[in-house]
This record gives sequence, structure tokens and C-alpha cells, in this order.
Amino acid sequence: MNRSKITEHYRYVRGQSLALVAPLSAEDCCVQSMPDASPAKWHLGHTTWFFETFILEALEEGFQPFDAAFRVLFNSYYKRIGEQHPRAQRGALTRPGLDHVLAYRANVDKRMLALLASEVVADLDRLVELGLNHEQQHQELLLTDIKHAMFQNPLGPAMWDGDAPAAPAAPAAPAAAPLGWHEHPGGIALVGHQGEGFAFDNEGPRHRVLLEPFALADRLVTNGEWEQFIADGGYRDPRLWLADGWGWVQREGITAPLYWREAEAGGQHFTHQGWQARDSHAPVTHISHFEADAYATWASARLPTEFEWEAIAAAHDPAAGNQLDGAAPPLPRGEAGMFGDCWQFTRSAYLPYPGFRVADGAVGEYNGKFMSGQVVLRGASCATVRGHSRASYRNFFYPHQRWQFTGLRLAKDIAG
Amino acid sequence: MNRSKITEHYRYVRGQSLALVAPLSAEDCCVQSMPDASPAKWHLGHTTWFFETFILEALEEGFQPFDAAFRVLFNSYYKRIGEQHPRAQRGALTRPGLDHVLAYRANVDKRMLALLASEVVADLDRLVELGLNHEQQHQELLLTDIKHAMFQNPLGPAMWDGDAPAAPAAPAAPAAAPLGWHEHPGGIALVGHQGEGFAFDNEGPRHRVLLEPFALADRLVTNGEWEQFIADGGYRDPRLWLADGWGWVQREGITAPLYWREAEAGGQHFTHQGWQARDSHAPVTHISHFEADAYATWASARLPTEFEWEAIAAAHDPAAGNQLDGAAPPLPRGEAGMFGDCWQFTRSAYLPYPGFRVADGAVGEYNGKFMSGQVVLRGASCATVRGHSRASYRNFFYPHQRWQFTGLRLAKDIAG
Amino acid sequence: MNRSKITEHYRYVRGQSLALVAPLSAEDCCVQSMPDASPAKWHLGHTTWFFETFILEALEEGFQPFDAAFRVLFNSYYKRIGEQHPRAQRGALTRPGLDHVLAYRANVDKRMLALLASEVVADLDRLVELGLNHEQQHQELLLTDIKHAMFQNPLGPAMWDGDAPAAPAAPAAPAAAPLGWHEHPGGIALVGHQGEGFAFDNEGPRHRVLLEPFALADRLVTNGEWEQFIADGGYRDPRLWLADGWGWVQREGITAPLYWREAEAGGQHFTHQGWQARDSHAPVTHISHFEADAYATWASARLPTEFEWEAIAAAHDPAAGNQLDGAAPPLPRGEAGMFGDCWQFTRSAYLPYPGFRVADGAVGEYNGKFMSGQVVLRGASCATVRGHSRASYRNFFYPHQRWQFTGLRLAKDIAG
Amino acid sequence: MNRSKITEHYRYVRGQSLALVAPLSAEDCCVQSMPDASPAKWHLGHTTWFFETFILEALEEGFQPFDAAFRVLFNSYYKRIGEQHPRAQRGALTRPGLDHVLAYRANVDKRMLALLASEVVADLDRLVELGLNHEQQHQELLLTDIKHAMFQNPLGPAMWDGDAPAAPAAPAAPAAAPLGWHEHPGGIALVGHQGEGFAFDNEGPRHRVLLEPFALADRLVTNGEWEQFIADGGYRDPRLWLADGWGWVQREGITAPLYWREAEAGGQHFTHQGWQARDSHAPVTHISHFEADAYATWASARLPTEFEWEAIAAAHDPAAGNQLDGAAPPLPRGEAGMFGDCWQFTRSAYLPYPGFRVADGAVGEYNGKFMSGQVVLRGASCATVRGHSRASYRNFFYPHQRWQFTGLRLAKDIAG
Repeated sequence: MNRSKITEHYRYVRGQSLALVAPLSAEDCCVQSMPDASPAKWHLGHTTWFFETFILEALEEGFQPFDAAFRVLFNSYYKRIGEQHPRAQRGALTRPGLDHVLAYRANVDKRMLALLASEVVADLDRLVELGLNHEQQHQELLLTDIKHAMFQNPLGPAMWDGDAPAAPAAPAAPAAAPLGWHEHPGGIALVGHQGEGFAFDNEGPRHRVLLEPFALADRLVTNGEWEQFIADGGYRDPRLWLADGWGWVQREGITAPLYWREAEAGGQHFTHQGWQARDSHAPVTHISHFEADAYATWASARLPTEFEWEAIAAAHDPAAGNQLDGAAPPLPRGEAGMFGDCWQFTRSAYLPYPGFRVADGAVGEYNGKFMSGQVVLRGASCATVRGHSRASYRNFFYPHQRWQFTGLRLAKDIAG
Repeated sequence: MNRSKITEHYRYVRGQSLALVAPLSAEDCCVQSMPDASPAKWHLGHTTWFFETFILEALEEGFQPFDAAFRVLFNSYYKRIGEQHPRAQRGALTRPGLDHVLAYRANVDKRMLALLASEVVADLDRLVELGLNHEQQHQELLLTDIKHAMFQNPLGPAMWDGDAPAAPAAPAAPAAAPLGWHEHPGGIALVGHQGEGFAFDNEGPRHRVLLEPFALADRLVTNGEWEQFIADGGYRDPRLWLADGWGWVQREGITAPLYWREAEAGGQHFTHQGWQARDSHAPVTHISHFEADAYATWASARLPTEFEWEAIAAAHDPAAGNQLDGAAPPLPRGEAGMFGDCWQFTRSAYLPYPGFRVADGAVGEYNGKFMSGQVVLRGASCATVRGHSRASYRNFFYPHQRWQFTGLRLAKDIAG
Repeated sequence: MNRSKITEHYRYVRGQSLALVAPLSAEDCCVQSMPDASPAKWHLGHTTWFFETFILEALEEGFQPFDAAFRVLFNSYYKRIGEQHPRAQRGALTRPGLDHVLAYRANVDKRMLALLASEVVADLDRLVELGLNHEQQHQELLLTDIKHAMFQNPLGPAMWDGDAPAAPAAPAAPAAAPLGWHEHPGGIALVGHQGEGFAFDNEGPRHRVLLEPFALADRLVTNGEWEQFIADGGYRDPRLWLADGWGWVQREGITAPLYWREAEAGGQHFTHQGWQARDSHAPVTHISHFEADAYATWASARLPTEFEWEAIAAAHDPAAGNQLDGAAPPLPRGEAGMFGDCWQFTRSAYLPYPGFRVADGAVGEYNGKFMSGQVVLRGASCATVRGHSRASYRNFFYPHQRWQFTGLRLAKDIAG
Repeated sequence: MNRSKITEHYRYVRGQSLALVAPLSAEDCCVQSMPDASPAKWHLGHTTWFFETFILEALEEGFQPFDAAFRVLFNSYYKRIGEQHPRAQRGALTRPGLDHVLAYRANVDKRMLALLASEVVADLDRLVELGLNHEQQHQELLLTDIKHAMFQNPLGPAMWDGDAPAAPAAPAAPAAAPLGWHEHPGGIALVGHQGEGFAFDNEGPRHRVLLEPFALADRLVTNGEWEQFIADGGYRDPRLWLADGWGWVQREGITAPLYWREAEAGGQHFTHQGWQARDSHAPVTHISHFEADAYATWASARLPTEFEWEAIAAAHDPAAGNQLDGAAPPLPRGEAGMFGDCWQFTRSAYLPYPGFRVADGAVGEYNGKFMSGQVVLRGASCATVRGHSRASYRNFFYPHQRWQFTGLRLAKDIAG
């Protein structure tokens, strides 16, 4: 991208964050419902801190911080930058108030735009692109975090009104198609990012992998199929589960995906528009890796590796499918393609690629240090900004987490 | 009180709650810093719920709840009323928003005032008095809860600006007087509430107790004296502590009262006006029962029983001393008398008086069921509304709790 | 007691501890089933440590410890003596083995008997009496701790065989008598220990208390009555419970006394002889203070204060009733009198008497520092050595604990 | 192996378990020091249960269980077999006593030997081999579990006396050689078990992997090198650690390998012979995956993948090196080769190989269900029975666990 495109993109992405919180009150923006989630206000501040700390502080002449305390308050986990406010205590920050954080955003935007209007500075374009991709990641987290917070409220509030212009009525999902399969003959494939576009460090280096013949389902598992898994005793049969998964099911009393409930009127799930009827043809979502693995075992299939997934996805349009446009309430609907609706679990652990090196400086902490104990998800979800993801994109979470829009696509071995 | 006085008092007390939250933002009013504390917004709603549930629902013609969901949301612990929103989850309630809760207050006030303007209804005056005393208790909790929440914030925000008109400059505390003693010859004393005025059920029945000769200090222990206790190794010597207290000190790493810190400029404590220098002549506060007991042992004295305290206090003016007037920032200053500055620990467990009976109906849950594991505090604090307390008043907390304005007054045995 | 009687008593009490562990293997003696309980081996060592540390170390010429490490290993909580092995880690001590601890006992016994045979030494008789009463307390704990440990074992092992000579067949309990009442007119009573015999420090000073007229049941509540409480929904009705008690019921999922189970053949409970049918006429036992209080509320009665209990018990024989003789398996049977079968809950918190002073030196830690958060039990149980208790004896536990032989006797107010 | 060799091997392996517990008392064999570890007695019973349940029950005519209760008590995690005694409660089983468990072993051995002496039965040889390999795994766990239990004891007991014949004096370790490297040019390699010998299911199917050029160190990291890591602030610098690892270091207060202490006489570590001086030339052991990864980062190297390790190890003798012979106290010494001294961490997550299928029946639960959240270790340790391991052997533990004899061997990328 050239400078003017970057500047335009900067305005667009930064504006999107504000659009997402438009339906929220200052109270909504302050609450933290669990240590894994952050307040919306914190997301607004942290994404701004990223630009101020990694760009303005390095490149702006006569740099003065907007507020010196924000360096700690809005630092997520960058040890090289210094102290961090404890993650689980982010909800305690009633001050700075939302208004003050919005003023922080406006101030940093003004200074960033001035910098972007200046002569070319080494690294600026690259860092702005990183900052914007970082902000898009937080836009998805903001949506899933506020959903989790609203879910705690026994009133079951809607973040968007059902008939607000920003919330187009979901098209009636078509009956889920019969399951078809993408077949792959195996052999040596190239995976990881290549080319000019932006990618995170964990997507490289591009390298060869050896695949055995396999097939990958052409659609995601649906709510209706999941109901069959439940009806067949899926949550009560330890033989279907990984040992850690069974321990989790027992300890937490898990009997269904997160956000499901059975009402008199039928199956419901909690959405950004409050409690809604579940569509049996829409993809199941808010499941953990443990649940995805147990379902695959029940279905006599398995999860794909991240490389199998990428080998198929490389031929698909990453910008197609049900992804986030503007500020509409995200909800899986069951659109075609490899991207959109739900992030898709793989059986791969999140580990470095051969030759992976952590970048120098604080930005190098971005991805590498999380390469332990997590699993890779691929694709994109209905809460991912359209255009943000790609075939080489690696998302990752712990195997018990399920407050993201997570789903699954089955895989199986085939004869070579 | 007659009806017009009650009506006037209703307006005054209800208005005071609003004055206390005036310096707070909607975010400040929503946060909950620990399960023991509640959001300011919840206090505003719960005190209103008390009037709506125990008075309007019983006595208002054609009663309709303002919002049926509030019956659960703002129920604290009245099992006979039905379900309660879990105490530790009160901070999750971003909705109803502060504006909506204020509208709830206005609606209930209007209906209450209409009821008060109507003919005499049995029980109305008594129940309104109970509701107003209940609200005054929550005004004190609101002040101590918001202090605890602000303390979590590394910015150390002030709830009141130092020079705001509502916050009179604290008079320079006089040098603490040398310790004098109120002596009592022992014998049979009458304790518990008597007379016409309001009292909580736990203050009766009035009954006889047998006292041995004792003396009670004529002032509270000061910050300066507490610093000597610390300097003498008070927090490191298990011989001074009750076994449970020593376990608490070790487990929690306790080395000073809550809200103390040692800065370069000298000893500070956190107040409603942010971090301030500690006055060595002012009474020490925010100590637990364990700490009070250890200090008394160190000082070769003991805590008084609640009856010894009452026998002395009966001759003192309960409305004198440093108590809450209007909406000023509360802070112990060291005024004379038996009431004000800090609630005073006794060595008495919180237990029923002989002949105590729980009242019929839901209001009967007010006090009796808490008579286990807690200790009695007497007096009044700088955050207690002036006029709310009296000699027979029994406050109670668990022995490790210290976010209230708690302090201590020494006692000792004397020859008969 | 004179010296020869003390010497005889020393031999008897020390021998009883060995008799109690005779049916146990070395493995049984090593296990610790919860932090509240201690291994039998630890009880054997600690009671010996008491004599070695408080008597031999002070009075034996040329004192040498049997094993210097035991000073820490077998110190329970005497801070003045020095470090203690952490209570919750007592079960980790596979070494010293049981044989070595028995050798320790034999060694200390030999030296103690030599000391007792020597000239009169100041304090010796008093300290030996304290040590023997201390050992009798641990004999009861040994029995209740090993019962708790055996209960963890799904095999439900019997500590004593049903027909072993040490285990006399329990006499068929007579039908529980209709409840009668001991009435007391109230007035000033004298409580606390008096006279020449041994007493613990917490039983004094003897002092006057003021009682209101009351009545005390003439027998304990039975298993059959408790089954009615359960059948009536006693464990599901929060209105019957103290708030802390209801929290405990919910958190722990309590639905019956400890050690109860419902088998096809009828109600059973776990005993030192394994799982046995419950006798509906025998006193209920292994209940917490919370349960005792809820039952009393359900029965429209209350728990007595410790002074009411003592005022009645003073006229009864403390050595009568179902108490421990020799090494038989303890089990409540429902014998007459105020002592035996079960310790009886009072509503009194465990607090110091007026004028109570902690004794000088390490022995002074015996009782005083536990005067916080616990409740007083009176009487004696089927696991208390006959002759150990008396009317002024104060036992104490936390309100949720129930692995002791605890029971209840109802009280009520009467007209004066 | 033919039948007579299998029979001989059966006698040898079963006898080895008894030799390992010979220095232990019944109390030692009963204790459980953490949920991850099991009592020695439980290992003795469980390995016997394996033969009784998977072989005798299926193949013995007129099968009668030795004790029906053992089916549950000694079931580790086989859901298809039925219930299990809870893992964390294994230490509560004082009964059956050690003698009874030894009688169980003798009984099953007699029946197994009778079966082995009978005609060929389908599957018998294969199942016996599995049972013996299973028992060898538990022999290593028995040694590491009892070490952990002894470590809890402040007396620091030795399991073997220093000069007992079973405990040969450790040869003085030679000065650690300068680090050399095994280089590998990369390319397609075959990994996984092949051939006739025994292997666990998780070692197959044998399959191709693609390797990039790499080098693997020719010896393990030593105690002396680890001391340099500590001296350089390795445990205090978050930049060296995976995020989960740093959280673990902070939460647990980790500052050195497990079992290390600094005494006046110099660095010591706890061994099966009690506290001993650390040999700076011997391999470091009892480190977690987190520590291994941080060390590798500090040393500008990395951990190998499990396939890199296997590609080098395939050319080495798996029965060489410091492995367990007889019943000597295990201790890393720093012998040459790829096997022995310590299990070696890889960077690979423990996941199924392409085409891996869980076997039918209960034995199928052996490995597959643990393929989540764990990391692969390769090689063998000084506590692994010589001959038990091989190049394709996959051991696995959670990244924080370190009570096994774990160590590390560095790897690095090289130019192709």
C-alpha cells in the first residue's frame, strides 16, 4: 500500500472501533466479565497505546505522552516496555472514563495523521500496517468480550436492537447442504505466508510440509448436527473425549456449547441481539477444542492439521463468506467457502515454523511467546473484519476456551 | 415522629444518597472491587427496592412493579422474597444503567410520597423508619465500598477534589491527649434498646448483665501509637496474635492497616480525596479485629465487651463527634466522646440477646441470621450519618474484614 | 493426687494410647485424611513430645533429646518452642516409622518414671497432670481422626472387628424416652472451675453470671428425630439456617450428618466397626454447629448457652454415661445423664472469662489463642476417656466442623 | 520372543518391582505426596491389576478375581473397565496393606505362570509383552514418585543407604566435554516404529517427515551450565520465557530446578540417597519444559523437534548409557550417547501421527486420549529400565511437570 492508501485505511480502521462501541454505554465499556476478556474501553485504549508507544514515541519529534500513566495501564504484555496493569484487574479502571479514553484516541489520531502526512520515515508504513492489523484483532475481541459480559446479565440485554439499521435481519439460512469433501492427494506442499501483503510473524517462514492423502469437509458442522451429538449422549461418554477434555467436562459441568439454553419455545442461544432461536442449519459455534475433538471422534472423523487446512484454503477467496462489514451484529449463518462464520479448530498445536525467529525489540513479543499449550484455528469468523484474514493466518487459543466464534470442519484420511 | 416529620426525613435521607454519588461517574457507580463490596448503583437500587418491596407492594393500591426484574436484581439476601442475583456478580450489571436506576428512585419516591400523604395505614410509619435507617446503613457502605474500588486503581483517584466546597479542609488534629480512663465499678447493668425511638431488632430485648469492675479508655488508639506497634515488630510476633489472626497475617502478608503506604515524603493513607499524609494524632482506622486484639495484647490491655462499652456510652451524646453531615469526605480526626471517627471493636461475638426472637415475615431476616462468626463493633464512624447510631447500636463484621472505618478503644480490668 | 497415684495414672494413660492403636497397621497410623486431622503416629509422638519438652527438658539432669529433629516434627503450635512441621503435611512423615515412634515413647516413659521416682520437684506433679490430660484429649482426637481416615477408603474397613473382645456388642438402645425438661428459675449462678482437681486454664476464673429462666432437654436429639428433620426438608429451607450455615450447605452439598448413607437395607452410618445400621433411638452425631442450630430452629427451640448448660450439669455425675473405658469402639447409645454419648453444642462463642489471663511461658499457648471464631461444646462423648471431663469443661470447634462426636440437646425460654 | 523367553522375562520384570521397594517400609509405600504421584503400593497393585484384568479375566478358565474391590481400586483411567478410585485419593488407601498387595502379586504371578505354561492362546504373548512394558513404565514412576515423597520430609531421608551393596558409589563424573554437534542435512526421513520388536501404539504408524538442516548437541546441558544460567538472571528475565512459563515462574516462585538447595557446603540436590553435593559436570535434571525452553533461548539455541531427535538417535544404541540395572539408586552422571541419564525435552507437542488409530477395546485407552497439552520427551533416563526404550519411544508430560528425570539437549538450525 502507498502512503495515501495507508492513511485512508488508518482512518477507516480507527473509525470502525468507534462504530463498534456506539451502541454501548460507558458502563458497558468498563466491565470485565472474566480474566480472559477485557473491557471495551481497555481495547480502545490499548490499540491507541500501540500507535503511541511503537510509532509516535519512536518517530514523532518532541514526543510527549498523552498521559504518562497510560504507558502502564494500557500495556497488555510487552515486558520490554515495562510494567503492566494486571490483566484480571482491567475492569477496576473506572478512571480514566470512557470520555477521557476517547479524547486519547482523538489526540493520537491527530498526531498519527500528521506523521503520515510528513516525509517518508523508515519503518512507518510497516508499523502502521501492524498497528491496524493489531486493532482489527482487538475489534474481534471487543465483540466477543462484550458478548460474554452481556451474557452474565440475567436480563439478557441486546447490544444491538433487532431492527436497528446496523443490524440487517439474518437471511433465513438455507437447509444445510449434504456434506461434501475436498480431496487432496498428499505430497509436498508449501505453507506459510508469501508475497507482498501484510502477515504476522508467526505465519512464516514459508516452508515445505509433507501431507498424506486426506479429505476436508466442504462446510462446517451445524447446530442441528450438534444436537444429534448431544442426543446421542456425546457429553456423557468419556470414550469420545481426550482425557483433559473429559476432566474439563466433569469439572465445569459442560453439557452444551457456551451460550446455549433450552427454552419452552425451543433451543436458543445468546447473541449480540439477546436471546434468539437457534437455526439448526447454521454452523455450531462457541465450542472448545475439546468439544470439537470429541464430536469428530463421534462422527468417525478427525480434525484437520493446520497444513491440510491451508493446502485446501489456498485456492479460496479469503475475503468471501460471512465476515464483519461495518458494525453489524455478528452471527454464523452458513455461507459457502473456507473463510467466515467461525474460526475452525485444527488438531495442530501452536508451535513455531522451522526457522522462525522472534523479531528484535518489543514488537517481537507479539506472537512467539504464546507458542505453548495452545491450538491453532484457521479461517475467519463472522466477527473478523473482512479482508483481515488469509490462508496462512494462524489464530490460537487454549483448548478449553470457547468465547470466540469457534467451529469445526471435519477431516478424514483417504487412500492415496 | 409524626407523619410530616417522617415525610420530611424521607426526602432528606433519599436526597443524601444522591448527594453522595454526585462526584461519581456512571462507570464509578458500576464497579465492584470484591464480593464483600457492592457497586454504588446497586446500593441506590437496593435501598429503593426495599421501599418498593416491603411497603409499596403491601400498601399501594393497584401496585405494579417499576420493573419486575428488579425484584431479583436488587434483592440482597431475603430468601422469603425469592431469588437473588448472586452477590459476587453485582458488578456485571452494566444494565440497568445509572440513569435507569435514578429513574427507578424517582418513580418510587413519587409513589412513596403519595402514600405518605394518604390516610394513616397500619405499619407505614414503622416500615418507613426501618427503610430510612436501612438506607443510612447503605450510605455508609456506599462510601466504604467506593473507597475500596478507587483504591484498586493505580492512579489513586480522588472521589472529592481537595478544595471542593463539599470537602472542608480537615482541621489540624490536636496532639492526641494522654490516655485517660472511664472507670466502672461493675455490678448489674441494663443493656439493649429502650424507649420510643427507632432501634433494630438485634438491640433487644433490653436485659440485665453482670459486669466486673473495668476501665475504658477515653479516646481511640492513634496512627502514631500504631506506628510504634509496627516499629516494635507487632506484625511479626505470633505471641501477640490469636491463632486465626496469625494465620491471616501470614497468608495475606499483612504488615500495616489497609490503605497505608510508606512514601518518600512519609506515611500516607488512601482517602476519599486520594493519597494523603497520615496524621499521627488521628485515630488509626481500617484495621481488622485480629489487628485490634493483637494491639491490645501488645499494650497490656484488652478489648472491651460490648456491654462494658454500652455501660459507659449510655451517658454520652450519640450525635456528637466526627460523624457524617451532608456529603463531605469522611476521615477520622480524633474528636472527643464515645461516638464518631471509627467503629470500635469489642471482644464480644455477635449473638442474640436473651429472649431475642426473629420477627415474622421477610423483614425478620434483617439481622438474626448473621449471628455466627462475626464480632460486635460499637459507636459510630466518620461515615455514619449523624443521628443514625445510639448506645445500644450493634454493628458487626467478620474478624478479618477492614474496609470499614474500624478502630479501637482499649479496656482493662480494675480492682472492684 | 499424691506422687504414687500420679505415677500409676501416668502408666495407665500412656498405656491407653498404645491400646487404642493396637488394631491399626503402620500404614493406618501414618495417613492424614484432611488438614484438621492428624495421623495416629503423630498423636503418639506429639503427646510424648509434650512430656519431653515441657518436663524432661526443664527438670531432667543432663537432659539430651531422644532425637533433636522431633522438637520441630512433633510441635503442634507452640510458637515459643520454635518452628513447627506444617500441620497439613503431617501425613508426609513416613519416617520416623511407627516402630521408631514407639521407641521414642518407651524412652520418654522410662525417663519420666525415673523423674517421678525422684525427690519432689517443684511443678512436676502439676505438669504431669497437664500432660496426661493433654494426652487424653489426643486419645479422643486419635479416635475421631482415624475414623475419618478409614471413611475415605471405599472398602469401608472396620478398625475393630465386630466380635473382638475389645468390642462389646452394643446393647439394643431402648426406645428414646419422651422429651423431658430440666427447668431453671434463672438468677445469678457461679460458673467456671473451682476446687482442688485439675482444670484447664480456659475454665476459669470462676465467676458470676446472670441467667434468665430456661429449660434444658433431659436427653439428646436422636437419629430418628433427625430423619424427620430431613424428611421435612430441613436441608433445603434457607429460613432455618444461619446465613453462614446456608452458604456451607450450598457450597458443600450437605444433605445429612457426616458418615450417613442410605443403603437398600436402610439407613447406615460409618463407625469404627465399619458400616452399620443406624439406631433411630440413639443420639444423632457428627453434625456441625450450623446443623444443630437449624434443627433447633425447626424444632421451635434453641441451643443453650454454655452457662445454662453448666448450671444444670453441676448437679450431675461427670463420670456417668457412655464414655470411653479401655479401648472399645466408641458409639453413641443414648444413656441418661448430662455427660457422654456426644459433645453438646451451645450457642456460646468460645471467649475468655472475665479476668482470664494467659499463663506465662509456652504452656500458656494452650488455650487462649484459639478464642476466636469457635463455638463451645459441653459434656463428654463416647470417645472421651471416662473421668476426663467435668461440668466446667469447655470444648470448642469451628461451626462447620463435624468429625467429632458432636450432638445437641435443646433449650428453651420459660416464664420466670 | 518365544514363550520361554517371555516367561523368563515375566519373572525378571515382576521381580524387579519387588527389588525396588525392598528398602521401603509399609508406610513409605502408602504415602502420596501430590495428585501427579502415586503410592509405591498402588504401583505394585496396579501393574498386577493390568495382568489380572486384561489377561487372566479374558483367558483364564474359571476366572475369579483375587478381590473384586481391586477392579476399581487399582484401575488407573480405563473408562471401559468401569469406575476408578479417584487419583488424588490413592494415598488414603491404608488398606489393603502392603502385605495384602504382595499376596495379590504372588497370586496373580502364579496364575500368569500357569497360563504361560499352557498351550498357545491367541494374543497372550502380545498382551504379556504389553503388560511387562507397562510395568517397566511404572517402575520408573515408582522411583520418581517415592523420591518426591521423601523430599517432603524435612529429615531428608535416604531411600538407599550410601554404602549399601545395591548402591554403587557414583563414579566421579569426568569434566563435561566441550559441546559438539551432530549435524543433519535435512530432507525426507522415516520416523516411527518399525520391525518386529515391541512398541507402544503412539510410536506408529511409521511415516515420512520433512526435515530442514539442523544440528543436535552431542551431550546434555550440565548442572554447571545451569548455574551460569541462574547467575545470569535466567529466572528473573521474562524475555527468555514462554508466556505460560513466566506465569508459572511467578506464581510458584521458581528459582532453580526441583530438588536443588544451596547449603553452606555448596550446591546440593535431593537424591534417592538423601541430600548430596551436586556434580557440576553431571547433566542437569528435574527441570520443566518451560525451564528447558528458557535455557535454550538464553543459550541462543532451541529445543529439537521430536523428529530431529529421532533422526539422529536412530543410529545410536538405545541400550547404552546410564539406565537402570537392577535396583540401584538412579542419578544422572553424564555418559555418552543419545539414551540414558535424562529424558530430553523436544519442542514437539504430543499429537497423533498421520493415520494413527486408537486400538479397539479398553487397552486402546493406553495412549491416544492423552494427546492434548503435553510435550514429547525422547531418550531414556537413569531410572528407565535398560532395554525398555528405543529411538521411536515417545514419553510425554505437561510443560510444568518436573518430578521425572528430565533434561535437555540443545539444537540449532544450520545452513543446508
